This record gives sequence, structure tokens and C-alpha cells, in this order.
Amino acid sequence: MERILKTMSRKAGMPPGSLVHIGEIPAAGVRFKAFRYSETEFEELAVPDTESLLRLKEKEGILWLQVDGVHEPEIISSLGEMFSLHALTLEDILNTGQRPKMEEFDNYLFLVGKILSFDEKAGAVQEKHFCLVLMSNTVLSFHESGANIFASVENRLQKPNGKIRKKSADHLVYSLLDAMVDNYFLVLEKIGAQIEELEEEILTEPSMDSLERLHFLKRDLTILRKSVWPLRDVINSMIRSDSDLVLDDTLKYFMDVYDHSIQIIETLEAFRDVSASLFDIYLSGISNRMNAVMKVLTVIATIFIPLTFIVGVYGMNFNYMPELSWRWGYFATLAIMAVLGIGMAVYFKRKDWF
Amino acid sequence: MERILKTMSRKAGMPPGSLVHIGEIPAAGVRFKAFRYSETEFEELAVPDTESLLRLKEKEGILWLQVDGVHEPEIISSLGEMFSLHALTLEDILNTGQRPKMEEFDNYLFLVGKILSFDEKAGAVQEKHFCLVLMSNTVLSFHESGANIFASVENRLQKPNGKIRKKSADHLVYSLLDAMVDNYFLVLEKIGAQIEELEEEILTEPSMDSLERLHFLKRDLTILRKSVWPLRDVINSMIRSDSDLVLDDTLKYFMDVYDHSIQIIETLEAFRDVSASLFDIYLSGISNRMNAVMKVLTVIATIFIPLTFIVGVYGMNFNYMPELSWRWGYFATLAIMAVLGIGMAVYFKRKDWF
Amino acid sequence: MERILKTMSRKAGMPPGSLVHIGEIPAAGVRFKAFRYSETEFEELAVPDTESLLRLKEKEGILWLQVDGVHEPEIISSLGEMFSLHALTLEDILNTGQRPKMEEFDNYLFLVGKILSFDEKAGAVQEKHFCLVLMSNTVLSFHESGANIFASVENRLQKPNGKIRKKSADHLVYSLLDAMVDNYFLVLEKIGAQIEELEEEILTEPSMDSLERLHFLKRDLTILRKSVWPLRDVINSMIRSDSDLVLDDTLKYFMDVYDHSIQIIETLEAFRDVSASLFDIYLSGISNRMNAVMKVLTVIATIFIPLTFIVGVYGMNFNYMPELSWRWGYFATLAIMAVLGIGMAVYFKRKDWF
Amino acid sequence: MERILKTMSRKAGMPPGSLVHIGEIPAAGVRFKAFRYSETEFEELAVPDTESLLRLKEKEGILWLQVDGVHEPEIISSLGEMFSLHALTLEDILNTGQRPKMEEFDNYLFLVGKILSFDEKAGAVQEKHFCLVLMSNTVLSFHESGANIFASVENRLQKPNGKIRKKSADHLVYSLLDAMVDNYFLVLEKIGAQIEELEEEILTEPSMDSLERLHFLKRDLTILRKSVWPLRDVINSMIRSDSDLVLDDTLKYFMDVYDHSIQIIETLEAFRDVSASLFDIYLSGISNRMNAVMKVLTVIATIFIPLTFIVGVYGMNFNYMPELSWRWGYFATLAIMAVLGIGMAVYFKRKDWF
Amino acid sequence: MERILKTMSRKAGMPPGSLVHIGEIPAAGVRFKAFRYSETEFEELAVPDTESLLRLKEKEGILWLQVDGVHEPEIISSLGEMFSLHALTLEDILNTGQRPKMEEFDNYLFLVGKILSFDEKAGAVQEKHFCLVLMSNTVLSFHESGANIFASVENRLQKPNGKIRKKSADHLVYSLLDAMVDNYFLVLEKIGAQIEELEEEILTEPSMDSLERLHFLKRDLTILRKSVWPLRDVINSMIRSDSDLVLDDTLKYFMDVYDHSIQIIETLEAFRDVSASLFDIYLSGISNRMNAVMKVLTVIATIFIPLTFIVGVYGMNFNYMPELSWRWGYFATLAIMAVLGIGMAVYFKRKDWF
Repeated sequence: MERILKTMSRKAGMPPGSLVHIGEIPAAGVRFKAFRYSETEFEELAVPDTESLLRLKEKEGILWLQVDGVHEPEIISSLGEMFSLHALTLEDILNTGQRPKMEEFDNYLFLVGKILSFDEKAGAVQEKHFCLVLMSNTVLSFHESGANIFASVENRLQKPNGKIRKKSADHLVYSLLDAMVDNYFLVLEKIGAQIEELEEEILTEPSMDSLERLHFLKRDLTILRKSVWPLRDVINSMIRSDSDLVLDDTLKYFMDVYDHSIQIIETLEAFRDVSASLFDIYLSGISNRMNAVMKVLTVIATIFIPLTFIVGVYGMNFNYMPELSWRWGYFATLAIMAVLGIGMAVYFKRKDWF
Repeated sequence: MERILKTMSRKAGMPPGSLVHIGEIPAAGVRFKAFRYSETEFEELAVPDTESLLRLKEKEGILWLQVDGVHEPEIISSLGEMFSLHALTLEDILNTGQRPKMEEFDNYLFLVGKILSFDEKAGAVQEKHFCLVLMSNTVLSFHESGANIFASVENRLQKPNGKIRKKSADHLVYSLLDAMVDNYFLVLEKIGAQIEELEEEILTEPSMDSLERLHFLKRDLTILRKSVWPLRDVINSMIRSDSDLVLDDTLKYFMDVYDHSIQIIETLEAFRDVSASLFDIYLSGISNRMNAVMKVLTVIATIFIPLTFIVGVYGMNFNYMPELSWRWGYFATLAIMAVLGIGMAVYFKRKDWF
Repeated sequence: MERILKTMSRKAGMPPGSLVHIGEIPAAGVRFKAFRYSETEFEELAVPDTESLLRLKEKEGILWLQVDGVHEPEIISSLGEMFSLHALTLEDILNTGQRPKMEEFDNYLFLVGKILSFDEKAGAVQEKHFCLVLMSNTVLSFHESGANIFASVENRLQKPNGKIRKKSADHLVYSLLDAMVDNYFLVLEKIGAQIEELEEEILTEPSMDSLERLHFLKRDLTILRKSVWPLRDVINSMIRSDSDLVLDDTLKYFMDVYDHSIQIIETLEAFRDVSASLFDIYLSGISNRMNAVMKVLTVIATIFIPLTFIVGVYGMNFNYMPELSWRWGYFATLAIMAVLGIGMAVYFKRKDWF
Repeated sequence: MERILKTMSRKAGMPPGSLVHIGEIPAAGVRFKAFRYSETEFEELAVPDTESLLRLKEKEGILWLQVDGVHEPEIISSLGEMFSLHALTLEDILNTGQRPKMEEFDNYLFLVGKILSFDEKAGAVQEKHFCLVLMSNTVLSFHESGANIFASVENRLQKPNGKIRKKSADHLVYSLLDAMVDNYFLVLEKIGAQIEELEEEILTEPSMDSLERLHFLKRDLTILRKSVWPLRDVINSMIRSDSDLVLDDTLKYFMDVYDHSIQIIETLEAFRDVSASLFDIYLSGISNRMNAVMKVLTVIATIFIPLTFIVGVYGMNFNYMPELSWRWGYFATLAIMAVLGIGMAVYFKRKDWF
Repeated sequence: MERILKTMSRKAGMPPGSLVHIGEIPAAGVRFKAFRYSETEFEELAVPDTESLLRLKEKEGILWLQVDGVHEPEIISSLGEMFSLHALTLEDILNTGQRPKMEEFDNYLFLVGKILSFDEKAGAVQEKHFCLVLMSNTVLSFHESGANIFASVENRLQKPNGKIRKKSADHLVYSLLDAMVDNYFLVLEKIGAQIEELEEEILTEPSMDSLERLHFLKRDLTILRKSVWPLRDVINSMIRSDSDLVLDDTLKYFMDVYDHSIQIIETLEAFRDVSASLFDIYLSGISNRMNAVMKVLTVIATIFIPLTFIVGVYGMNFNYMPELSWRWGYFATLAIMAVLGIGMAVYFKRKDWF
């Protein structure tokens, strides 16, 4: 169940705001990327140090700092200082088990989301932590390593006359959320393909193995649900927030993401419906095959048991058994048994037993 | 599951507002029809070009532009320009996987719905995309090709003294929505007929095939649900919208459509109830038949196994077996076995086993 | 499923407000009754014509026009003209598939309800359409033919010093709704009796037939639900309506009906609970009986199969089988088999297998 | 189902406010007790007549009139006149099927509740009607005969310096409701004990009888639910009521009862959960035992059927069967069969079949 | 069911506010600890008497009185007097069955929570009572003995420059709630581990024992639910309370705890989902194994019953049976039977029956 519940207990007994990483520690270190852009300028720093970050912060335009990896508390802590983030915000960034939420602070909005991916080998959904901080002219994004799905946004930023370059920082936040949600559709499609495969399998030749796959699929849907349902509220509170950081112009775009998140939820629920139905089919399939087996057994036993009784009768060793000495007794008996056997076979055939 | 989830992933990584068609591409091209009407005039353009459209737009009266096919982004895009539609609106028109919704823009209302049809051959529900744009004196309707259910509305427009000719543009929108919802009843009736057929079948002679049909029926109901539930909210937000585009006089009519959408939802839920119950019946039917088979086997085996034992006894080759030399030993044994067999048969008959 | 979904599709493609009857057409024609009463006067017209109706309308006191049968659009239409009813109202009166609702119009309130009856022969619930129009000093009631449950209200009107004679028109509406809801209790009691019967049957000797009855019972409850749940909202909106047509004094009475409608809903849900539980009992009953059958088969087979093997051994024709020539070989074998058989029987008895 | 639905139909067709008793008529007659108390005085009248009641009513202090039995409409009616109660209130007092509710009238608050008891013999929950009328300085309480659980409240009233004597009439109402709700815990505990017993039984040796008990237990929980869920709303509307009859000081106490009613609801739902789980266990238990039976049958049949075939072979009467004349043929055959039989037994043992 | 419902009936019939302990009485007595701290000072009293408590109360700074054990009404009562707590508050402190809630009194806030622990031996969740009283500058905490999880908070208080020392009393309340909720994650993790173990067991070799464990697990989840769901409301009403006792600065922290409580609820529901799915798997596992057993029986019986019939035929004692005297009759019969037997075996193999 570790996939349902990250080991949050590691923090039990620590003071609130303690900066402790919760989650798997990846091999790779924490990597940074910084982008500064305005309608006319674009600058990218692949490995920014503190100084160059401070320099960027001072400049005009919008700063996007992308942090790839949330497993080093010291780094998160020093960034927190640089951008004056609340201790609870830092705690949430480090806690990969934190559920999606949106919080308003005095000078920034803080969002937690999840980046999903589908591990083809394991046939299971992977969930990665993702946080966003929106300040005026500055966006900080944090994600667990190996969850970078924002290449397309970066590309758009580089294009000199891209629309996004003309917009404010909240539009960048929207673009990142949109990328995240679009990615969910990819995952849902893969799950949909899996369900279809299972459906085919269960309708034609169900096995204990298909049941096991169905069980893990249902568990995946349960995990997905935990990531997706709160997302709706997150985006909704972005829309309803009266923060100055979200411009009226961007609201329509957030509405669009909201709409997509509802669509994802509906699809998820439809998948749950279908997989519940599949389990029912599976159960019936087993019953049906048991029934078929029973019928074969019954047909064979019911035809031959009486016949075996008859041959047993004429295998008795009584001194006086008149039939035994009849000339055609043997053939008559064979004939009678043939009639009896064929009769029963016809009867069962009519009853549609085989 | 492609029917539950259109391939929305095609757009992942694209900037928002990218005009990409999502859905099946039909053989037919995009076709237009334009109608302009007022209380006294009526004009129809079967294949309008841009110029004649512009001309119509300038004229008095109400313009209804019907677009049959949403799979050519360039066409949708140029219409968007002509009528100054928001980029997100164009995106939604092209995305046939978009769920039903209603959005207010500065100068227009935008509605997404679904046109349903029942494919008799496949025995499955087909869902087609449908969008409406309501501006003052102009209505744009978009639907996937092969989903034109608006012939009756066109007819009414042509009649010189039809009520609809005297009403404003929002009444046309109402008429189109009403046609869409009335069409749902047709689909529900066909599904109802299917359920009735299945009910008959499952109550008399259930087979693995009926189960499969039941499964696909349930999946159809799941798909329908995704189209119909949001519809209620769409119409409700039309009613609650304080846009000038919806006149007070039309509200009563929208209320009526709202009412029908609730009725459709209730019917759908009742169908789900009934089909869940049918599955239960199916399962019991299987169990019952297994029971019947078991009883036959048990009756035959239980009667003949002891008898076969008896004849086996007198088939033994012991030198000293006094019964064998008795004069009536054979017939006495036959008689005893007859009594035993008939006794057991009567016993089972009384226990109602066959 | 026709009982769940009336053929509303008949109207697909027609303009809204088209007056088309939807539902079964009864043998009987449409019949009228008109009552005019005040504290001091009472007048009844059994077969009013248009003229006498108009005359009654002019007079003082409260007019109640009862229309028995809604299957003649022309009649409904002419009444609509006489009392200036909205086209949508007339449409709803004619549509027997219309769900219960309450609508406020400028000069009247419009209510749709359902009159239920229990068809003893078919063992099924019948649902009849029922509409009420409340104007100042005038009440119009429409019901499908064969659904007159208002005799008691008529009687009370005739009594010179009945309370109802002193009250306003909304009190008459209340009395009619109260009669309708009281009638529901009658239907529920009959269903309750059916459930009790089924419970008895399923607990003692369940059969495929009881399952079928249970299925139809559940379908009946599904249909009832569709009539009863919206009723609560109907009465609630009567109470919350700020129309002048509903006097403060009458509110307490509507509250009482509201209360009863909740009680009906709760009873319905309890019935659903109980019938779901009954299905579970049924399934277990089948399993239990299969188990019993299996045990009998197993006991018989397990006792006799080894014995039959033993007698088979001594039926072999080997030249050298020393036991065969022993003086007491036969009886010893019989004795051993008896001990074995009885031993196994005792063992199974102890295991409580028969 | 009479326990789910009291015969409310008896009133169908009567004018509203008709005083008809609905429910079982007990052997005992209606009994009265009247208490009048103030901080300094206490008076009890065991069998008050109208006159003495009127006299008490005139006096200072708080009057509590306890009516034990609601099956005599005349008595209820005359009390109604004396205390000017609304006709609908009297109707509800007489109707033992009335669900819990709270209603505000001009000069009094009216509450309906249920007094529960657990009939140890029948193992079933009994539900008794209970009504309260709170006027300024006067409390009327009505309950079905045999449901007096208020002895403790009476005792407290008698104590000269009891807190309750210093409080207003609404505190008496609170005390009565508190007694009623405390009583629910007693009933829940008894049901809890029953569930525990059933759990034990079903986990060790489930029988058709335990299933039946489980079914009736679930029905009891369904009935309880109907009494308890509305109770929460009743007490909540007492708290939210802005009537002068409920003092601010008493609110905290009503909050406490409210809290208890929620706790009862939660316990009820937990009981439902557990009993649903028990049914699942029961079903599995049956399947498991069927499985065990099948295994025994299969082991026996699978071992002996092939052996019986072998002895059959050497029981054939062919003239030329060389094995028959071998010196050790018989013993070799026995040895082979022993090896075969033991081999199969070991195989099944390893497969854990017995 | 005693774990679902504490014996609250012990109080039935007592006046409200009666101080009676409800719950298990532990061996240990009630123990006290008192802490007084300000930014600069820290004082701890291990066994405070009344006098020293009064002295502490007078001093500056924040007083935290920790009461370990709630089973001595006199002690609770005297504390109630010292801190002027409402009688109902004292009642709730003594009642270990009280559900979580938050109540505002004139001069203090009162919270009830539950401290959970997982009894490894019994494999069951233990629930302990926990109450908090927040006054200005004073916090009282009560817990059942053996439920002290606040050591970490005590440690932080002792550190001279701990953040908590600079904050107000409501921050201490937050710290205690946070410790309680963090502890829930520990319990959830242990349950998660149990579910994983069961999942492994049920997927590989399900037994009646795994079913029993699953049943008790589900019961544990039901109990947890009763503790955790109301917790959310408790913390939410802390946040929404407009009491002066909760400072704006602390709200963000309570929001964090609220967030965690939601996460716990979601995890719980996911666990319920998974365990429901496990039960389904269990059932299918049984069916599958029954199926396997049936197939073995059927294969053996179906192959050997016809063969046994054939050998029976040639065991008959008819005088005239020509085959018997054929030279190769015996071997031909053996050969035919071999072909028949192998043929059937191949057939069943192909049908994948063994």
C-alpha cells in the first residue's frame, strides 16, 4: 500500500515546518533551470548559482525557476529564504505524499499537483510530486526528478513571437497546469487500452491471471482518484481566488483546465464502472465454465452408470439365471443398452447439455 | 475504451488554443448552410462562400449558420475570425471529445452538447459533437458530419407564419437544443427495447451471449451518462445566466428543456437499476441450472451406485456363496434391487429433486 | 421498459408547444365535472358545455373543473384558450410521461403529479398522469381516465358546513394533493404485503419464480421512485413559492403533505433495502441447497465406490486367488465391507453431512 | 412490512385533521399524570380530571401533563381544545406511524419522536410513538402505552433542590428528549450484542438459520434508521428555531442531545457495514464448505474409479487372458493397485485436498 | 461490537451533566503534569497539587496542564471548578465514547479527539479518548492513560529558543492536534502493511483464515472512520471559529492539520476500496479452485466410466458371447480401450481441463 500512502510517519514527532524529505530518493541530484523572458527578451540559465539567480530576480520580465528534484532539504530551504516562502510551503514541497491543494499566502499563491506517468513494464501508474509558486513576475516550479513534461512550454517561451511571451506570470502557471492535465489524458488512454485488452481477455478466456490484473487496475484507478479529485478543487480555488496575481484575462484559460479536470474525473469514474462490470463478467464466466464441466460429467455418468449396472447384473454368478443360456441373450442385452444409451444421449442433447 | 475517451492526448504539448481536430475524420467534407430570416423574410444559402456570408451578416433579421463537419481546422479558424470567436471556443469546437458545457463570453454564449444516435447494426450508441454560438441576431451551429437532426427546425423556419420567425435568436437556440433532447428520447426508447429483449432472454434462457450483451449495454449507459449529466448543468446555466442574449420570454422554454433533461437522467438511472437487477437474475439463473444438473447426477448416481454394488457382490467368485445356488436367488436379488431403486426414486421425487 | 419511459419520441421534430397526446388512449372519452361552491352555495354540473362553463366562471365562489381523460388535444386546447393557459402547460397536460413538477406562470400555478394504483391481477403498479392548475378562485384538475380518487373531496364539498367550503382555492388544491398522497400509502401497503409474502416464500422454498417476482417488484419500486422523489420538490416549491395564490394559512397544510411525501420516500427506500436483502437470501438459499445435494452425492459415492472396488477384486478371474477357496471368505468379505460402510456413514454423520 | 409502514391508509379519503387513531390498540386505557413544579413547590396528580387540570393550568410554576396512550381520539381532542392545539397537531399525535419532526406553531412547538425498546423474546426492535408540546410554562407529553421511560425525570422533579426545578419548561423538554436518546443507546447495545453473537456463529458454523437472523437484523437496522435519521433534523431545528420558548441557556444542552443523535446514526451505519460484511463471510463460508465436500468426493472417486477399472479388466471372461494363469498375477495386480492408489493419495495430499 | 459502541447506556436515567466515567478503567491512577512557559522562562511540575496549580495559574506565561487518565470523576470535577468549565464539558471529558467535536463556550474552546494506536499482538486498532480546553494563556489536555504521544511537544517546549515558546496558547493546541494527526499516519501505515500482506496471501493461497482477517480489517476501518471523519469538521470549525482565542497567524497551521485530516480520510477510503476488491478476489479464488477440482473429477470419471462399462460387458456370463473365444479378443479390447482412453485424455487436454 506504499503507493497509496507515502511514509508520512517519518515526520511524526517533529515540529511543524521541519524540512524533511518524504518519498523515494532518486539517483540523480537536484537540477535547476532558470528562464527570464519578456515580450522582447529571452534568457536561459542551465545551471544557475545563487548569485546569478539573484541577478535574474532583479531584472525586468518574468522569471521561471524550474527545480528538478525535491529531495534535498537544504536547497529547498535556501530557495525558500531567497523568495521568502512560508515554512509550511517548504514542508509541502519536500513532502511528495502531500495531496493536491492551493493555498494563498500574503505575497504568493502555492499549488500542489501530481504528474502522472504510466510505467509500461510494471503496467502501473506512477505518481510524481509537483509544486508551483506564483509571485508577481516570478514562477517557481518544483517536481520530483524524472517528471519533466514541460519541454513544450519551454519551447514556446523560446519562440520570439509566442503568445505566452506577451502574457503575465499567471499565464505561465496556466501553461504548466495545462501541460500537467494534458499529460493525464495520455495516462488515461493507456489505462483505457489496458481495460479494453482485459475486456477482450475476460470475455473470451478468463483466467486467475486476468483477475489479478483487474485487481491491480482497480488499485491504480483508486490511486488516480486520489490525485485527480482534489485537482478539481485546486483549479477551482485558483478561479475563485481574488488574488491580484491571477488576471481576469487568464480566468477563461483556467476555466478550460478546470473543464478538462472534470472530464478526467468523469472518465475515471466511467473506467471504474466498466471494471466493476468486468469483474461481474469474470465471475459469471467461471460459473458458466463450471456449469459446462458439470454437464459433461453428468451426461457421461448418467448414461454409463445404468449401463454398467446392467452388465453387472449379467456378471452375477447365480446358478439359475435363465437369460444367460438364451441364444441371443448377449446381443439382446447389447441392443437394449444401445437403445438406452442413445435414448439418454438424445434426451440430454435436447436439453442442450452438450 | 476509445468510445469513453476520445484521443485528447493528440494535443498534449501544444500551446493552448491550438486548432487541432480531435476525433474521427469522416469521408465527407465540411458543408455549410446559411439561413436568414425575420418575421417577413426567409432566405437560404445552400453553399455559402465567405463573401455571401459577410453580406448576410450585414442584412437585417436573424442569421443561422449551420456547419456540418468539424474536422477542418482552417475552416473553423476562418469562421472564428469572421465572427470574432475566442481561441478557446474554436479549440472546443474542433475537439469532439469536449464534454457538454456552457460558457459566457463578452459578445456571445457558447454551448457544447452531444447528438446521440443508436446504431442498430452494432447495437451501440453513437455520440456526435455539437456546438452552438449565440450572438445577438446570429446563431452558429456546428455538428460532426452525419448528425443532422435539425430538419424539422429548418422546416418550421420556412413556414411564413411560424411562431419561430417572430422570435429572437435565443428561441432558435432553444429550438435546436429541444431537437437535440427530443432525439435523446428516441435513443432511450431503443435502449429500453433492448433491455426488454434482454430481460425476456435472461428470464427464459440465459446464455454467455446475453451476458456479453448486458455488459455492452451497461457500457452504453455509462457513455450516455457522460453526455447527459452535464447537459442538465448546461441548460441550467443558460437559465441562470444574466446575459442579455437570453430573453425573459424564452426562459420558460429553456425550463421545459431542463425538465426533459432531468427526465432523461432519471430514465437512465432507472435503466441502470434494471440492468443491475438483470445481472443478478442472470447469475441466479446459472446457479439454478447448475443446481438442476447436480440433482440429475445425484439422483442417477445415488440410485445406481448401491445397486451396482449389489450385483458386484454376486459377481464375486468365492467358492462358497450359498445364495448363488438358491433356486430363486437371482430373481430375489432383482426384486430387492427393484424395491431399493424405486424406493430411492420415490424419496427423491418427494424431495422434489427431479 | 415502456412503463419506465412513455413514448415521448412521438413528438421529436415537432415545434415546441405542439399539442399531441402522449400515452395510452383509453376506451372512454373525456368527461367533465364542474363544481362551484362558496361558504353558502354549492352547484354541480355533470356534463358542462362551454357556455355553462363560461357562466360558472363569471359567478362568485370557487370553481373546480375536473377533467377525466387527457387524450383529446382539441378539448385541452379549447380549455387552454378559455382559461388562458400557456402552450407549454397544455403540452405537459397532454404528455402522460411528464414527470412531476411545479411551475409558476403569471396568473396561475401549474402542478404535475402521478396517481398510482396497484393492479392486483398483474401484481404491478399503474401510474396515471395528474395535473392541477391553481388560479384565483379557480382550480382545474386533469387526470387520465380511470384514475378518479377524488370522490371523498367531492363529498366534503357537498356538505353545507364543511371546513373546505370556507377556505380559498389553494385549500382545494391541498385537498386534492392530500388525496393523491394518501392514495400512495394504499399502494405502498399492497407492495409491503407482496414483499412480506415473497420474504416468506424465499425463506422457506425459493424458486426461480420467486426470483422473477422479486425482479418485477424491484422494477416497480424503480418506477415508483421516479414518481415519488420529484413529488417532494413539487410540494416544497409550493411551500416556498411567494405566489399570492397560496395563502399563509394553507402553508401548514402543505407542510403536512410534504411530511407525508418524505415518509413515502423513506418507506420506498426501506423497501428497496429489504428487497436487496431478499435477493441475497435467495442466492444463499440456492447455494445451500446445492450444498445439500452435493453432500448426498458425496456420501453415497464415497461409501459405495470403495465397496464396489472390493467386490470387483473378488470378481477377478485369476487362477490362483487363495481367498476364494476359504470357507468363510465370502462372509468375511461381507463383514469387512459392512464395517467399512458403517464406519464411513458414522464419520459423515459426525461431520454433519446428512 | 407492517413494521416499516403503519396502516396510514386507514385515513385515505378523510378530510385533513380527521382525528383517527392509527396503530395498534393496546389493552390498557389512556392514563394521565400531571406535575406542577416551581423552584419551591411540587405537586403531582395521578388521575387528573378536566377540572383539576384547569385549576393546575391557572396556578404558577411549570405544568407537565403526561399522557400514556394515544389511542382514544376523544381524549386527545378534548386536550387539544383545552390547550388550543392545531387540528394537524392532534392528527399527528394520534398517528403512531408519523415520522419524527418538529413544527413551530404560533403559541407552541410540536415535536414527534420515537421511543425504542428491544423485545428480547422476539429479538426485534419495538418502536413506540412519542410527542411533545412545548408551551410557555407548560409541557405536554404523549406516548403509546407501555413506553414510559421517564421515571428518572419524574424522580429528579421531586427532589426539592434539583437543578431542573430552577429551569424553564424547555429544560424539561430537553430532559425528556435526553431520556429518549439515552434509551437508544440501550437498544443499540443489545443489537450490538446480537451482531457479535451472529459474527461468532457465522465465523464458526454458519447455517441457514444464521442467515435468517442476519436478514431480520438488517431489517431491524432499516427500521431504526427511519426513526433515527429524522431525529437529527428534529433536534437541529429546535436549536435553530428562533422561538422564544427555547432559551439561550438551554441551547448548549440541546447541542449535547444533537451530538448524541449523530453518534447513534454513526453507530447504526457502522452496524450496517459490519452486517453487510457478515453476509459476505456467510456466502464464502458456504462456498468453502461446498469446496471441501467436492474435494472429498473427488479424492475418493479419482482413486477408486481407475482401480475399479483394473479389477474389472481381470473380471472379463475372455478365454485367452494370459495374466490370469500367472502364478503371482493376483498378487502382482493387488500390488500395482496399492502403489497406484497410494500414489494418487499422496499426490492429493500434497495438493492439500484433504 | 463493544469497540464500536462504548457502554453509554450506563448513564441512561441520570440527570444531564452527571459526572460518570464511561469506558475501561485502567490499572494506573490519574497523573498530572503542568508546564508553564514564556519566551524566556520554562517551568515543569511533575506532580502538581491544587495549591501549586493555583500559583501557576496566577503567574505570567502560558500554562499547559496535562491530565493522563480520565477515569476519576472527582478529579475532573475539581479541575472543572478551578477552571470554571461547563458541566457538559466535564461530562464529555469523562465519556470515552464521546465522538470528536469542537464546542465554543464563553471563555474557552473545547475539543474532543481520539488518539489511535495499533496493537500489534491483537492486530487491531485501539482508540483512546483525548480532550483539549483552550483558554487565553491556558491549555488543558486530557487523555486516557497509556495514550501519551506528546513527548515531542514537551521536548520542544523545553528548548530555550524553540519557536513554540514565542507563540500563543492556540499554537500549543495546534501542536498537540498535529501530533495526534501525525500519529494517525503511523497507524494507517501499519494497516497498509497488513492489507499488503493479506493481498499477497489472498492472491496466492486464500484460506478461511484470510477471510476472517479481512473481516476484522474491515471492522477496524469502520472504527477508524468513526474517529477520523468527524475530525475534519472539528478542525474546520476551529478554522472558521471567530473566537479571539485563535489568532490569525495560527490559522495557516490549522489549515495544514485540516489538510492532513483530509489526506487520512482519503487514504482510509482507498483502503476500504482495496479491501472490498480483495474480498472479490477471495471469492473468485474459491470458485476457481472449485472449478479445478471439478475438472479433475470430471476428467477421471469421464475417461474411466466408459472403460469400466466395456470391461463389465466382457465380464457378463452369457453362454454365447462369440468375442470371448476369439484368440486376440482380450488384447483387441485392451487396445480399443487404450485408444478410447488416450483419445479422451487428448480431447480434455485440448479443452485445457488439466
